[in-house]
Amino acid sequence: MSVPHRAPSTLLNSRRSPLLVFAGQSNRPLAQAICDHLGVPLGHSTTEKFSNDNIIVHYEESLREGDVFIVQTFSTPVSDSIMELMLMIDAAKSASAGRVTAVIPYYSYARSDKKDSPRISIAGRLIADLLQEAGADRILTMTLHAPQVHGFFKVPVDHLSADVVLADHFKRSVPDAHTGVVLAPDAGSIKRASQIARRLDSGLAMIDKERLSDTEVRPRALIGDVEGKTVFIVDDEISTAGSLVETVNIARSMGAKDVYVAVTHGVYTGPAIQRIAALDVTQVASTNTVLVPQSKLDGSNGRLAVLDVAPLFADAITNIHTGASVSTLFT
Amino acid sequence: MSVPHRAPSTLLNSRRSPLLVFAGQSNRPLAQAICDHLGVPLGHSTTEKFSNDNIIVHYEESLREGDVFIVQTFSTPVSDSIMELMLMIDAAKSASAGRVTAVIPYYSYARSDKKDSPRISIAGRLIADLLQEAGADRILTMTLHAPQVHGFFKVPVDHLSADVVLADHFKRSVPDAHTGVVLAPDAGSIKRASQIARRLDSGLAMIDKERLSDTEVRPRALIGDVEGKTVFIVDDEISTAGSLVETVNIARSMGAKDVYVAVTHGVYTGPAIQRIAALDVTQVASTNTVLVPQSKLDGSNGRLAVLDVAPLFADAITNIHTGASVSTLFT
Amino acid sequence: MSVPHRAPSTLLNSRRSPLLVFAGQSNRPLAQAICDHLGVPLGHSTTEKFSNDNIIVHYEESLREGDVFIVQTFSTPVSDSIMELMLMIDAAKSASAGRVTAVIPYYSYARSDKKDSPRISIAGRLIADLLQEAGADRILTMTLHAPQVHGFFKVPVDHLSADVVLADHFKRSVPDAHTGVVLAPDAGSIKRASQIARRLDSGLAMIDKERLSDTEVRPRALIGDVEGKTVFIVDDEISTAGSLVETVNIARSMGAKDVYVAVTHGVYTGPAIQRIAALDVTQVASTNTVLVPQSKLDGSNGRLAVLDVAPLFADAITNIHTGASVSTLFT
Amino acid sequence: MSVPHRAPSTLLNSRRSPLLVFAGQSNRPLAQAICDHLGVPLGHSTTEKFSNDNIIVHYEESLREGDVFIVQTFSTPVSDSIMELMLMIDAAKSASAGRVTAVIPYYSYARSDKKDSPRISIAGRLIADLLQEAGADRILTMTLHAPQVHGFFKVPVDHLSADVVLADHFKRSVPDAHTGVVLAPDAGSIKRASQIARRLDSGLAMIDKERLSDTEVRPRALIGDVEGKTVFIVDDEISTAGSLVETVNIARSMGAKDVYVAVTHGVYTGPAIQRIAALDVTQVASTNTVLVPQSKLDGSNGRLAVLDVAPLFADAITNIHTGASVSTLFT
Amino acid sequence: MSVPHRAPSTLLNSRRSPLLVFAGQSNRPLAQAICDHLGVPLGHSTTEKFSNDNIIVHYEESLREGDVFIVQTFSTPVSDSIMELMLMIDAAKSASAGRVTAVIPYYSYARSDKKDSPRISIAGRLIADLLQEAGADRILTMTLHAPQVHGFFKVPVDHLSADVVLADHFKRSVPDAHTGVVLAPDAGSIKRASQIARRLDSGLAMIDKERLSDTEVRPRALIGDVEGKTVFIVDDEISTAGSLVETVNIARSMGAKDVYVAVTHGVYTGPAIQRIAALDVTQVASTNTVLVPQSKLDGSNGRLAVLDVAPLFADAITNIHTGASVSTLFT
Amino acid sequence: MSVPHRAPSTLLNSRRSPLLVFAGQSNRPLAQAICDHLGVPLGHSTTEKFSNDNIIVHYEESLREGDVFIVQTFSTPVSDSIMELMLMIDAAKSASAGRVTAVIPYYSYARSDKKDSPRISIAGRLIADLLQEAGADRILTMTLHAPQVHGFFKVPVDHLSADVVLADHFKRSVPDAHTGVVLAPDAGSIKRASQIARRLDSGLAMIDKERLSDTEVRPRALIGDVEGKTVFIVDDEISTAGSLVETVNIARSMGAKDVYVAVTHGVYTGPAIQRIAALDVTQVASTNTVLVPQSKLDGSNGRLAVLDVAPLFADAITNIHTGASVSTLFT
Repeated sequence: MSVPHRAPSTLLNSRRSPLLVFAGQSNRPLAQAICDHLGVPLGHSTTEKFSNDNIIVHYEESLREGDVFIVQTFSTPVSDSIMELMLMIDAAKSASAGRVTAVIPYYSYARSDKKDSPRISIAGRLIADLLQEAGADRILTMTLHAPQVHGFFKVPVDHLSADVVLADHFKRSVPDAHTGVVLAPDAGSIKRASQIARRLDSGLAMIDKERLSDTEVRPRALIGDVEGKTVFIVDDEISTAGSLVETVNIARSMGAKDVYVAVTHGVYTGPAIQRIAALDVTQVASTNTVLVPQSKLDGSNGRLAVLDVAPLFADAITNIHTGASVSTLFT
Repeated sequence: MSVPHRAPSTLLNSRRSPLLVFAGQSNRPLAQAICDHLGVPLGHSTTEKFSNDNIIVHYEESLREGDVFIVQTFSTPVSDSIMELMLMIDAAKSASAGRVTAVIPYYSYARSDKKDSPRISIAGRLIADLLQEAGADRILTMTLHAPQVHGFFKVPVDHLSADVVLADHFKRSVPDAHTGVVLAPDAGSIKRASQIARRLDSGLAMIDKERLSDTEVRPRALIGDVEGKTVFIVDDEISTAGSLVETVNIARSMGAKDVYVAVTHGVYTGPAIQRIAALDVTQVASTNTVLVPQSKLDGSNGRLAVLDVAPLFADAITNIHTGASVSTLFT
Repeated sequence: MSVPHRAPSTLLNSRRSPLLVFAGQSNRPLAQAICDHLGVPLGHSTTEKFSNDNIIVHYEESLREGDVFIVQTFSTPVSDSIMELMLMIDAAKSASAGRVTAVIPYYSYARSDKKDSPRISIAGRLIADLLQEAGADRILTMTLHAPQVHGFFKVPVDHLSADVVLADHFKRSVPDAHTGVVLAPDAGSIKRASQIARRLDSGLAMIDKERLSDTEVRPRALIGDVEGKTVFIVDDEISTAGSLVETVNIARSMGAKDVYVAVTHGVYTGPAIQRIAALDVTQVASTNTVLVPQSKLDGSNGRLAVLDVAPLFADAITNIHTGASVSTLFT
Repeated sequence: MSVPHRAPSTLLNSRRSPLLVFAGQSNRPLAQAICDHLGVPLGHSTTEKFSNDNIIVHYEESLREGDVFIVQTFSTPVSDSIMELMLMIDAAKSASAGRVTAVIPYYSYARSDKKDSPRISIAGRLIADLLQEAGADRILTMTLHAPQVHGFFKVPVDHLSADVVLADHFKRSVPDAHTGVVLAPDAGSIKRASQIARRLDSGLAMIDKERLSDTEVRPRALIGDVEGKTVFIVDDEISTAGSLVETVNIARSMGAKDVYVAVTHGVYTGPAIQRIAALDVTQVASTNTVLVPQSKLDGSNGRLAVLDVAPLFADAITNIHTGASVSTLFT
Repeated sequence: MSVPHRAPSTLLNSRRSPLLVFAGQSNRPLAQAICDHLGVPLGHSTTEKFSNDNIIVHYEESLREGDVFIVQTFSTPVSDSIMELMLMIDAAKSASAGRVTAVIPYYSYARSDKKDSPRISIAGRLIADLLQEAGADRILTMTLHAPQVHGFFKVPVDHLSADVVLADHFKRSVPDAHTGVVLAPDAGSIKRASQIARRLDSGLAMIDKERLSDTEVRPRALIGDVEGKTVFIVDDEISTAGSLVETVNIARSMGAKDVYVAVTHGVYTGPAIQRIAALDVTQVASTNTVLVPQSKLDGSNGRLAVLDVAPLFADAITNIHTGASVSTLFT
Repeated sequence: MSVPHRAPSTLLNSRRSPLLVFAGQSNRPLAQAICDHLGVPLGHSTTEKFSNDNIIVHYEESLREGDVFIVQTFSTPVSDSIMELMLMIDAAKSASAGRVTAVIPYYSYARSDKKDSPRISIAGRLIADLLQEAGADRILTMTLHAPQVHGFFKVPVDHLSADVVLADHFKRSVPDAHTGVVLAPDAGSIKRASQIARRLDSGLAMIDKERLSDTEVRPRALIGDVEGKTVFIVDDEISTAGSLVETVNIARSMGAKDVYVAVTHGVYTGPAIQRIAALDVTQVASTNTVLVPQSKLDGSNGRLAVLDVAPLFADAITNIHTGASVSTLFT
C-alpha cells in the first residue's frame, strides 16, 4: 500500500471539511428543518439511557475531519439536554471531528447571568465553561436573555436575533403597526422592545417592577402611554405565562386596545397553555427554537402561532461552514 | 539553625478552616447520617427549579474560607444530580469557599470507562473533567466500576472500598463462609470477587460472557466449581437485576446450594424489585450509597438488606479535614 | 466521633496571612483613604518608566504569604493603568504573595460588554481573562456597567454597589425626594434607575434612544412623566458629559423643575467640566472611584460634589480578609 | 439553497498536509517497516546527548504544516525514550508542524493505572498529561494494559488491538485450537483471554493470585480445567518471564498437554531469555512493538517468535491521515 | 537580496486560507511597506478611543478562516500599543480568523527578562503569556534583547535577526571594515558584537560595567584594544542615547579613530536626537522596526540613517503563509 | 475600624504546615546535608524500577497538608532524574501535599535556552512546563546557565547564586586576588565573570569563540590581558572539561601565571577527571550541587575541591517555609 505523502497543489473546494449536522433529542424537527434548508441529511446518531439512568450517545457514521454542527435546544428536561449535548461534543472530538459547533437555539441558562443574591452560581457562565471544556469549538445561538451573555464564552459565538422575524410578524398582523406601542414587561426587556419599536416606527412603554424576594416580583407602574392603542408585548421567552398574564392585565387596565404578544422562545410550561387560552389577547407568537407540540397549539384556543427560524440557522451554518460573514446575513 | 518541622498536634485544629457539609437532593438521608457521625449540622442550602426547568442552588450561610464537602450521589435523575452538584461547586467557589470536596458515593458514569465501540464518549473521564472545571478541589467516592477510573481525575481522589463491609456482612450471614465460593458475574468483576474471596478465605468462580451487540450479552460458561456450595455473588452495582437473575440461574443450574448477593450500589431500577422478590436467593444486600426507599424494601419479599457506609464517609471526611491519612483508615 | 466544625473566632486572626494593601498610580488618594479606614499603612512600592516607555514596578517590602490587595482604578491613561496593575499582580505572585485581590473601583472596560457590531472585541471579557492570566485571585469592584460583566470573571468577584450612597445623597439634598422622578438617560441604565427610585420611593422615567451609527445616537422619546417635578438623573458614569447635557435638555424641555445628577464614576474628560459649569442643574455628584482633582472641582461653577466610597471598600477588604460575608455588609 | 456536504472521496488526498513520519531511537526498525508499508521515507532527524547527559533532538527537514507522526516505543531505557519523544513533539510543534501524532506501540506506563497503595503516582495518567503538555495532538498505541487507560488521555486516541494477530497465530500453530483452553495468568488479563477464547472458539481458565506485598504475589488456585488440553497463555507483556514460568508450571501441574504463549509486548528483560529457553512450552510469541534483537532470538532455544504489526500501524496512520475511520480497519 | 515574495497565485489558493495583513497604530508605514513587498493591500481596520480612554478596534472586512498577520511595534505609548494589539488579536479570533500571527518588530519588554532585583515582574514573560491568552497563534519578531526571550513564548516564534543588515551596512560604509573593532557597550551585547565581528572579520572589544543601583551603572574598564582603529558600536536598541554617549566617550578616550554606530531598534526618546546631533561619530544607523519620523532625521545633524527591514518581514510572512521554512531565508 | 495587618511572629509557626523534605536518587548526600542544617529528618520514600524499566516512587509517611520540598539534581542519568522528580511531585500532590517545591540544585536543561538552530526544542522551557504540569508549586534552584531561564517558569522561582561561595573561595586561596584577572571562557559567561571580578576587585578578560557547527567551536581571540597574572577561570559548569583544557591552554599561551578554576556545577563526565589531573592549574573547585564521588576526587591528582552549598539551600528552604524573604539572605 502506498500513500502520496504530499498534497497535490490544485483544488479549492477540496480544502473544506465535509459539513455534518447531528441533533440531540430536544428538538429534532428543528434540526431536520435546518437540514432540509441546507440540503444535507440529518446525521445518524443514537442516544439511549442505561438502566442506571446514564446517557450514552453513539455516532453511526465517521466524523473524522468533519465540520460538525450539533443542534440541541435547552428545553425540558434541561439537565438531560445539556448532558446529552456535552456527551455528543466529547464523542465528536474524540472521534476526530475537525471542528464542533454547538447549535443551541434556546440557551436557557442565559437567564442566570448575574448575582441577584449572594452564594448562587452565575450558571450562564458555568455552562459556557462546561461546553468549552467538553470541546465545543464555537457556538451558534439565538436571542440570549442579555447580550452580555455572549461574553461568557471564550470561543467564537454567532448570536442570531429573532427581532426581524418578530417585527415582520407584527407588521403582517397589524397594517398600521406604527400607531401602536411596544410594551416591555420589565426593565430587562426594554432594549429589545426599543429595537422592535424602531423597526415598527411605533411608540414604547415599560412596566417597572420591584423584586420582593428571590421568587416574588411586584409591578410598580407602567411607564409611558398605551391608552387606546394597539399594544405589542415582546420578550425573550414565556414559560408559565404568569408574568405575561400580569403584563396583559396592566396593559388592559391602562386602556390598551388590542394586544399582540411575540417572544423568541416559547417554553410554555405548567399552566401556560391554559392561561394563554383564557388570555384577552389577539395572538401569542413564538419561534420554533423550542419545540411547540401540536397538543399545545390545539389547547391554546387558537391563540398560539409559531414562526420558523430554521432558515436563519441554515444560513448561519452555511456561512460559518464556507467562511463567509454571518453578520452580513441579518441587516 | 533548626526549624520545627511539624506543628504540634494541639495546634492542628486551630489552623483549620471550618468544616462545612452540604448536600444536593439525591441522597440527603446519607448526608444527614454522615453529619450525625461527624457531629456537625448539615449545612443549609436550597435547590429549586425555575419554570423553564433551570436549576438554581442557593447557600443560606457563609462559606468564606470554609472546608466545604458537598454530598451528592449520581442516582436517578442522574443528569439533574450532576448538574446540581456542578452548580453547588461553582456557587461555593464563587462564594469564596477555601476548598471544595465533591463527595460522590455512587459515581454512576464510572461504567463509561472505555471505548467499547467507536464514536462514543468515555463519559467517566468527561464528567471528571467537568467537575474539575466547575471547581472541585478533590473527590471522595466509593467503589468505582474499575479502579482505573481514579486516574480520570487530576485532583486528589480518596477512593473508599465497600469490600470490608460486604465481606463482613457475608461472614455474619454464613458462619462457615470459607467453604463457599465467591462468584463473579463477569470478567469485569473478577478482581473484586477475588478480593472478597481472600477476605472470606473461600473459593472463586466466574461466568464468562460474550458481547453480541451494544446491548446484548450471552453467557458462555461458568469457570470454576459451585456444585453443592454456598455461593456469594458480588458486583459493584445492581440496576434492573436482569444480569443478576441470569447469574443466579446459572449458579443454580450448576448445583449451587444457597445464594447470597451483595453489591456496593443498589440502584434497583425498573423491574429490579419484582425480580429480586421472585429470585431464588437468601438475601440481596447493598450499601446506602444510593438511597433505597422503604417502598422498595417493602416490595422485595424481605430479601433486600441495606448496609450503612455513613461511618466510612464520616471518617474519611474527618481525616481529609484534619490532614490525617485516609489510607490508614481501611486496612 | 465528633469534630469541631468551626474554629473559635479568637483563633481566626492568628491563622491569617498579613493584610497588605498596595496601590498603582491611578488613584492613590483613594487607596490611602481605604488604608486609613483599615488602620494599615499603604504598602511601599514604586512604579517607573524606562526610557523606552516600558513600565517597571517594584515592591519595597516582602509579600511572602501575604493577603495582598492592589488598588488601581482604570482612569486615563487607561492602558497604563491596566498594564501597571498586571505587572503588580505578576510581581506579587512571583514574590510569593499568598493571595492577590485586584481592587478596581472603576472597571472602565465593562462598557465593552457585548457585540454591538461585528468584528470587535468584547473587551470587558478580554481584560478579565488577562487579569486572571496575570495572576489575580479575586476581584473587588464597584458598579459594573452591566451586572452581567461579573460573569466575565472566573475568579470570585465582590461587586459593590454605590446605589445606597447615591440614594442617600439625593435624600439629603432634597427633603421630599419621593415626589420626584428618577430619569434613566437610556435603556441601559433603567434597571439602576429603577432601584434608586425604589430607595427614594419616587417615580421613574426613561429616554428612548436610537443608535444611528457606532458613534452617533439620537433620542426618540421620553417615556414617563417629569413635568413640574424634581428630576434625579442617575447613570454609571459621566465622561464628556455630552449625553448628560442632552438628557438635561430633554428633561427641561419636558418641564422638569429641579435637576440633580449622581453617578458612580466621575470620569470628566474633555469638555466635561465646562459643560457641567454651564449646565442648568443643581448639582452633579459622583463618588471618588475616579480621582476628581481640585482643579476640576474649582472649574465646575460649584456644581460638582464628590461622595466618599473608601469606607465601603475598607469594609469589603476587611470582610474578605477575615472570611466574613461581604454580601451582608450592604443591605 | 444547497451546500455540498461531503467532499468526493477522490479529493480527500489532495486537501491534506504532507504525511511525515519520524522516529526516536527506541525502535527504528519498526518505524522503517511502517514507512515501507506507507511508501514514504522515514524522516531525517538526529538525537544526541550533550556531555552533561542532556538530550538534543534536531529535525533535518522542514515540518511546517506537516501531518507529523513520531514513532517511539517505551522500551529500556524508558525514561530516555519518553524524554526524547517529548523533545521531538515540542520541537515539531515549535517548528510549526500542523498536527503531531505520537505513535507509541508499547505504552509501558499503562501498568501504573491505579492506586495499588497510597502515596504513589498513577503514572499512566501523569505521562499522558505530560505528552499532551509537550504538544501531542493525538495518540496511536496498541494493547494498553487496561482499556481504561485510553481515558487517561484528553486528546483523541486510536487504540489498536493485537488480538487478531495473536489469535490467528494460534490458529496457524494448532490446527484444532478450538479444543484447547485459553489461560489467563491473573484476573487482570481475563478479559483479553476471554476475547481470544471467543476467536478460537475454545475454553477459558484463569489463575487466581493473591498480592502479598508491593512486589510479592502468590497464586491461590487455577479456576477452570486444563487437564489434557492444549493451553494458550495470553497476556499483554512479558518482561522477566518470572510470572510466565509460574503460570506454565501451574498449568503443567494441572495436566496441560501442550503450552503456547503469545503476548503483545515482548519486553524480555533480565533473565527472561534464559528462562524461556528452559521453559516447557512449544513457543513464546510476541509482536514487534518492542524490538527483539537477533541475539535474544538466538538465545531462546528456538522458542521465540515475532509477529509483525507494522501493517496494522501503517493502515491506522493512513486512515488517520486521510480522515477515514480507524475503527473499521480491525473487525 | 531578492526573494520571490509571492508564491505563484495558482498555488496560493489551493490549500491556503487567504493572507490578510492588518496594522495597529504604532508603525503603519512599516506595515504598508511590508504589504507593498507582499503585493497585498493593508487590511482595513479602525482604532478609536472612547471618551473614557478605552480603546476600541474594529475590522472593516471579514476575517473568517483568514491567515491573519497583525503588525504592531511596541513604541511609545507602549501600553496603548500592547493593549491595541491584544484587542486586535481577540477581535480577530472571535471573528473566526483561522490563525493570528502577531508581528512585533520591536518587542520592547524583552529587556525585562530576568530578576535583577527581588519583587519585580519578568515582564517579558508576562506580556508573552498575555498575548497568548488574547489568542495569538504565533509570533514574528526581530532581535529580542536576549535570545532566551524566545523561550518565554509557548506558541511558535520566528525570530528574525538584523545582524546581516547591520553588518552589510558597515561594510558598505567602511571599505576595510575588517581592520576595525566591534565594540560591545556592555556584557549583555557581547554575543551580538561577536557575531557582527565575525561577519566583518574584524576585532572585538567590550566595556565592563558595574551596576550601582537599579538605575545607575558605572563603566569599569574597556576590555580589548581600540587605539587607532575604526570602531563599530553595535547594540539592540538606543533610547535616550545616554549609554551611547558614554560608550563613544570611552572609545574616544582610548584612541578610537572613526566611530560608527548601528542598532536594530532606534527608539530615540527624550534627549536622544540632540545628543546624537552633538556626538563625535560618523553615523548612527537603525532599522525601521520603530518609526523614525522625519523630524528626528532632520534634527540629527545628518547623523541618523534608517535601514529598511520590510523585505525581511515580508519574506518571513510569505514563508509562514505558504508553509515554507523561515530558517532557510537568512543564512 | 482597625484590622491587625500582620500576624505576630510568635503565631507564625502555629499556622504553618509541617516542613517535609524528601529526595530522589540523584544526590541524597546533599539532601541529607540540607536536612542536617534544617534539623529535620530526611523523609522516607522509596524509588524502584519495575522489570520493564518503569519507575515507581512511594512515600512511606503521610504528606497531607505538608509543605513538601523534593531535592533532585539533574545529573546522569538525567532522564531518570527528571522522570523520578515528576513522579514524586505527582504522587505528593495526589497524596494531598499542601505545597510542593522542587529543589533542583543543578537544572541541566537550562543550557537548552534558545534556538541555536532551527527545528530544535528549547528544552529548558519544555522541562519547566512539564514540572509545572506534574504539579510543582515552586522551584528552588542555583546558577541557571542564563538568568533568563528563570522566566521559563510560571510558578515562583528562588534562584540562588554560588557567586559569593566561588569568590570567597578564590579570596581564601589567593591572598592578593585583586591583582589577578577573571577570565570568561566565552561570551556566555562574561556576565558571571564580571560579577566575580567585582567581588574580587580584579581585572576581567574573555575568550571570543566562533561556532563552526552544532558541535564544533573555535576560539578567535583572548580579549583583555592576562600576562603575568593569576587567572581565575569561572563558569557555570564543567562536564568533559574539553572546553576548560582549551581555555587554560590559551591563558597559558598568553602568559598567565597561576590558574584557578571554580564552577557551580561539577558534572565531570567522560574524560573530565583524567584531563583535570593532567591540567596545568592549581585547583578546580565546584560546589556539591552535583555529587562528586570520592573516586573522582581521588583520581584528580589532588586538584578537585568541593564547596558546600547545603547551608544556602537550608536557609532558603527555611525562609520559604516561614514566609520570610529569600532575597535578603544573599547580599
